[in-house]
Amino acid sequence: MKHIPQAALSEIPSHLVSVSDYAKHAKSFIAADIYEYIVGGGADEVTLRRNRDALDNILIMPQVLTDCTQGSTSFTLMGETFRHPIMLAPVAFHQLVHPAGEIATAQACSVLETAMTVSTLASQPLEAIAQELTGPKWFQLYVQQSREFTLQLVERAQAAGFTKLVVTVDAPLHGIRNRAQRAGFELPEGVEAVNLRDRPPLPSRVLEPSQSIVFQGMMSEVPTWDDIAWLLTQTKMPVILKGILSPADALQAKQMGVAGVIVSNHGGRTLDCVPSAIEMLPRIRGVVGREYPLLLDGAIERGTDVFKAMALGANAVMLGRPQLYALSVAGALGVAHMLRIIREELEVTMALAGAPTIDSISAEHLA
Amino acid sequence: MKHIPQAALSEIPSHLVSVSDYAKHAKSFIAADIYEYIVGGGADEVTLRRNRDALDNILIMPQVLTDCTQGSTSFTLMGETFRHPIMLAPVAFHQLVHPAGEIATAQACSVLETAMTVSTLASQPLEAIAQELTGPKWFQLYVQQSREFTLQLVERAQAAGFTKLVVTVDAPLHGIRNRAQRAGFELPEGVEAVNLRDRPPLPSRVLEPSQSIVFQGMMSEVPTWDDIAWLLTQTKMPVILKGILSPADALQAKQMGVAGVIVSNHGGRTLDCVPSAIEMLPRIRGVVGREYPLLLDGAIERGTDVFKAMALGANAVMLGRPQLYALSVAGALGVAHMLRIIREELEVTMALAGAPTIDSISAEHLA
Amino acid sequence: MKHIPQAALSEIPSHLVSVSDYAKHAKSFIAADIYEYIVGGGADEVTLRRNRDALDNILIMPQVLTDCTQGSTSFTLMGETFRHPIMLAPVAFHQLVHPAGEIATAQACSVLETAMTVSTLASQPLEAIAQELTGPKWFQLYVQQSREFTLQLVERAQAAGFTKLVVTVDAPLHGIRNRAQRAGFELPEGVEAVNLRDRPPLPSRVLEPSQSIVFQGMMSEVPTWDDIAWLLTQTKMPVILKGILSPADALQAKQMGVAGVIVSNHGGRTLDCVPSAIEMLPRIRGVVGREYPLLLDGAIERGTDVFKAMALGANAVMLGRPQLYALSVAGALGVAHMLRIIREELEVTMALAGAPTIDSISAEHLA
Amino acid sequence: MKHIPQAALSEIPSHLVSVSDYAKHAKSFIAADIYEYIVGGGADEVTLRRNRDALDNILIMPQVLTDCTQGSTSFTLMGETFRHPIMLAPVAFHQLVHPAGEIATAQACSVLETAMTVSTLASQPLEAIAQELTGPKWFQLYVQQSREFTLQLVERAQAAGFTKLVVTVDAPLHGIRNRAQRAGFELPEGVEAVNLRDRPPLPSRVLEPSQSIVFQGMMSEVPTWDDIAWLLTQTKMPVILKGILSPADALQAKQMGVAGVIVSNHGGRTLDCVPSAIEMLPRIRGVVGREYPLLLDGAIERGTDVFKAMALGANAVMLGRPQLYALSVAGALGVAHMLRIIREELEVTMALAGAPTIDSISAEHLA
Repeated sequence: MKHIPQAALSEIPSHLVSVSDYAKHAKSFIAADIYEYIVGGGADEVTLRRNRDALDNILIMPQVLTDCTQGSTSFTLMGETFRHPIMLAPVAFHQLVHPAGEIATAQACSVLETAMTVSTLASQPLEAIAQELTGPKWFQLYVQQSREFTLQLVERAQAAGFTKLVVTVDAPLHGIRNRAQRAGFELPEGVEAVNLRDRPPLPSRVLEPSQSIVFQGMMSEVPTWDDIAWLLTQTKMPVILKGILSPADALQAKQMGVAGVIVSNHGGRTLDCVPSAIEMLPRIRGVVGREYPLLLDGAIERGTDVFKAMALGANAVMLGRPQLYALSVAGALGVAHMLRIIREELEVTMALAGAPTIDSISAEHLA
Repeated sequence: MKHIPQAALSEIPSHLVSVSDYAKHAKSFIAADIYEYIVGGGADEVTLRRNRDALDNILIMPQVLTDCTQGSTSFTLMGETFRHPIMLAPVAFHQLVHPAGEIATAQACSVLETAMTVSTLASQPLEAIAQELTGPKWFQLYVQQSREFTLQLVERAQAAGFTKLVVTVDAPLHGIRNRAQRAGFELPEGVEAVNLRDRPPLPSRVLEPSQSIVFQGMMSEVPTWDDIAWLLTQTKMPVILKGILSPADALQAKQMGVAGVIVSNHGGRTLDCVPSAIEMLPRIRGVVGREYPLLLDGAIERGTDVFKAMALGANAVMLGRPQLYALSVAGALGVAHMLRIIREELEVTMALAGAPTIDSISAEHLA
Repeated sequence: MKHIPQAALSEIPSHLVSVSDYAKHAKSFIAADIYEYIVGGGADEVTLRRNRDALDNILIMPQVLTDCTQGSTSFTLMGETFRHPIMLAPVAFHQLVHPAGEIATAQACSVLETAMTVSTLASQPLEAIAQELTGPKWFQLYVQQSREFTLQLVERAQAAGFTKLVVTVDAPLHGIRNRAQRAGFELPEGVEAVNLRDRPPLPSRVLEPSQSIVFQGMMSEVPTWDDIAWLLTQTKMPVILKGILSPADALQAKQMGVAGVIVSNHGGRTLDCVPSAIEMLPRIRGVVGREYPLLLDGAIERGTDVFKAMALGANAVMLGRPQLYALSVAGALGVAHMLRIIREELEVTMALAGAPTIDSISAEHLA
Repeated sequence: MKHIPQAALSEIPSHLVSVSDYAKHAKSFIAADIYEYIVGGGADEVTLRRNRDALDNILIMPQVLTDCTQGSTSFTLMGETFRHPIMLAPVAFHQLVHPAGEIATAQACSVLETAMTVSTLASQPLEAIAQELTGPKWFQLYVQQSREFTLQLVERAQAAGFTKLVVTVDAPLHGIRNRAQRAGFELPEGVEAVNLRDRPPLPSRVLEPSQSIVFQGMMSEVPTWDDIAWLLTQTKMPVILKGILSPADALQAKQMGVAGVIVSNHGGRTLDCVPSAIEMLPRIRGVVGREYPLLLDGAIERGTDVFKAMALGANAVMLGRPQLYALSVAGALGVAHMLRIIREELEVTMALAGAPTIDSISAEHLA
């Protein structure tokens, strides 16, 4: 499975014309086990496929002859202005695919006026990444067993200028990543969660024979709703939960003061056989009301996908894997090109659908 | 991707027995990049496939032992008599696939008593094409930014004997034609929109950084409903809008005095992920009433397809890509053979379905 | 496409264990163009596939621990006793696949106590075939343009001991058999519709330019309901119509005195894109009432298929193509073996479904 | 088709990470005809595929941030305590794939605290297998034509410590196992139903010509509801019926005093075209009430599958073919590893779904 990837390109080949082209092309630029780790989903990848298929099955109803001269993708959300609704989702370890890592990704975001969410598991210091970001920057937080260390991360993020805390709640354990396991994936030397270097070691634990390595082992170290409640008391940064599919969970988040929710199944990477994010989106919107901030993450790779998510109630969407594919192929240049493709696709979709502003996109534009 | 096509044939091989055979066979007769440009659809081709699949999923309910001796495919529409309801849709640049271009296509139409719609983007002068056409001839108009030049085109079409103006409204920009882009398609030397030679240059435009190349750029040069209203005041030729999927748009067209509508998604070539034309047809028929002229364009390639469209409310159908496939294989002879195949298939379908005249075809003949 | 078929076998290979095994195996024993002619359906074979898929999608609800010691597949229909409900459909030209032709097929039927329907287009004299048949024998009639010659055929059939006339009504013309056309199929020398040798020539006919070769040509020579009414006055043999899908047509047949109906779409060989026979069966049963004789033809190749058809209202089923496949592989022995397979499969199905007699099979045994 | 299998491994390759990996890997460790016999289903395998597809199409609704520290898979059923709800189904002839046979399987069960159901058709003495089993052990009974011999088997099972009798009712005959027939499967020398060695020979029987080898032959030797009623009077061991899909049959079983039912279609191996076990499960649960013991057998190979079955009303599930796959690859070690995989997958699923105990799993955890 191991292979020697090609060196990343310094210009973009003319046949790379869509986000999915980057996914295919990236295979030559990423070591085989790492590629499998990135591209794969949980178990049998039922949910991974469903994320894509559910988007494809939603139809847009175009309207012709609309005046688009005042068209724009700009909007504001939770006090911040966004040039367009396509953000980068938190993704761990960008140096897995390119030595310039998150720094390069951040540079591309600044050029394309794209908001970025930096992962707790970034392979570069969060402060260095923040420095490259001229637009909205959010920090993704894995709540740590040590509350003290959790607060240190929050304070570093705030000091570095991040404006929101995105707490991932759907991956307390890795799930059943058979594809990565079969490929023998492991973190290569030199790639590291540098922002966790000072993390205190976990207390050692001995399980009794009747105890489970899952329930009494791994799951005993991960956050619950109580930890979210605690976190809300510790910071003034708005907290957003990422990884919710259940309308009940979304309502609970809203009621405890969480600032927003990212509807997601972790890109089909944790529990398999759960619904696609896009099919749960309108149900969650129905429960939390029209004004509550909702984002959608999962399989977005076309301007039409973005449009569909907005029409079904999302305020914005997040891109995950495509940032690594584009980064692997051509570094910052690749990420910028990939972002330009999908942003222009969104504009073309809005024009042809007859919904030239973000506010004008609604379920009436779906068939 | 480039290849040297075979010279077009001067007789028809006996294994070419259906319209789709021409699609397959054409691959050897068209340069690779041009073939990809013709055959491809927008983005992921969800709509391209849906056009075909939606037709396949409609079932005909046959009736046996019907007297067909008075059978006929003739009918009249908007004051013209048609020998059968299979027209040629406007298709740009026939010389892309055969040097005889639109002239040859027109000759085949005359032999098979088939109505042709000549494109603004024809590769030969509209007057020369008109001269070859003995049956109904319509002119497809792309409304130009210069109203003066638009009117010049209208006047030329009228002078050449065209009887209807078909204004295409679903392709103000090219859409996301990834397949053609990947193949590196560009218009070859010698193939040109000759009817636009005198078009005045577009005014130069400089976008501000906050402006969009889509909204404030390309879309600012394309027509809106106001331009259609203007056009209706400038000509006595009946105006038909091509490229409508939304019932509301169809109703608007009818209410402003547009003479008819062609239900179409541009063969799946512009915005991807929109409904198939055939699935919108009965809904549009429901809105515009029984008498309003409606045509259907999109994936028609069988006599059964024509029958289904008629049963769901179309007055006639249009063939797009097949004319280029047949032209590439055997010039005028190929187009004539292709038209004969589908016309006879329609007659066989009408006979076996027990609906031997155009007026007798109704939704009761579907299962 | 042409190939030299293997000589038919004189014993059955042990890996031929299902009817569909014969379909696959037959490819080596039938000339390529003839194989394509037999196996193919009309146009794009939408209906051919639907016949099979519709059967697969019907589910049987098994009942356990049923006493089957009185089990039997015997039943009576229209005054005749059948050992089991699997008949042979009329199939033209058995000598296309084996020199022993219909004679061999008939011998197999007698061994397996299977009713056979001999085609007007048999390649051997109907009297010779009749002589080999010890069980129920029906004659399929294509009504001829010459009423006199039609009556000659009826009289010959009656004289030879055939008990029913099966009038095929769904194939007044060949349909669009593209697969056979592409393979260049034509009737080989020595294979002939011997029972039509004395047919008077068709009157010559010259079409006017405005007339259609389909409507005023071929369809003017084929029967209508009037001809069926006439035929009913000319013979005391019960007349059964084969090739009805429309409930209205079935009702019309019943009301005019037709003795029974065979629900069929000619094995998907004439008009494409019509419903499967099995999906129309219960609707037709609903219209004609519980007692009217109904048979089902189309894609039957498993004991479970037979059971499903019976549960949905058929009194018996007909096998078409499988008789040719089996005949090609091993002559009469092959046909007998094929019939034994499906008859035993039916018995196993009845046993495991808990419906051990023909009368006990009902829609309650479906899920 | 025959091949020489590799010798079973003594350690587990790192790329075997799921139950389905064992299915693929087993192909190198099992003789070809035996492999086909094991992996195959009845006839066209419609039901075999449906068993898998129906499970894949059920979606789990995850709940986040749940406290799992008290999580456990333990439960009690019919007076016995189970460490987890994944049992081994009765499977004949383990020595087909490994010389250590059922003894090795039993050893793995004891290590993984897994309940085993030993088949009447075990290739080793039921007493020897029982001795290896430290957890719950059930005995599967094929009711024999000789009631005396049937009771001998029951007494041996009881004496060996088995606690339940699992009477298989859905395979009175083999069904149409075409795949095994085509592969020429037969029981190899040295593999034998050793527990039936003393079975009295069946009385010889001569069928009349009008009698059926199925109805008056094979089916006359198999049990009916009367035999179940008789068996219930002969033993105090709880009797469970395995192989019921019909709610009426399940209700009948409950009403006559049968202790529980295993919803199953024999792994798609007997009658094809019946519903999947999982789709019948909730309907059967609806009929027998909340407290009646129900197990589910059929295509289970993921922790998510187990969870779905429990959510739809099963008290436990059974694994069939996977035990042979794992046994073939690495003997007892393989079976133990395979069981550990699916048990941990179940725990991960419960944790991520927010249902950390067996009692908390309900249909509300499905989407």
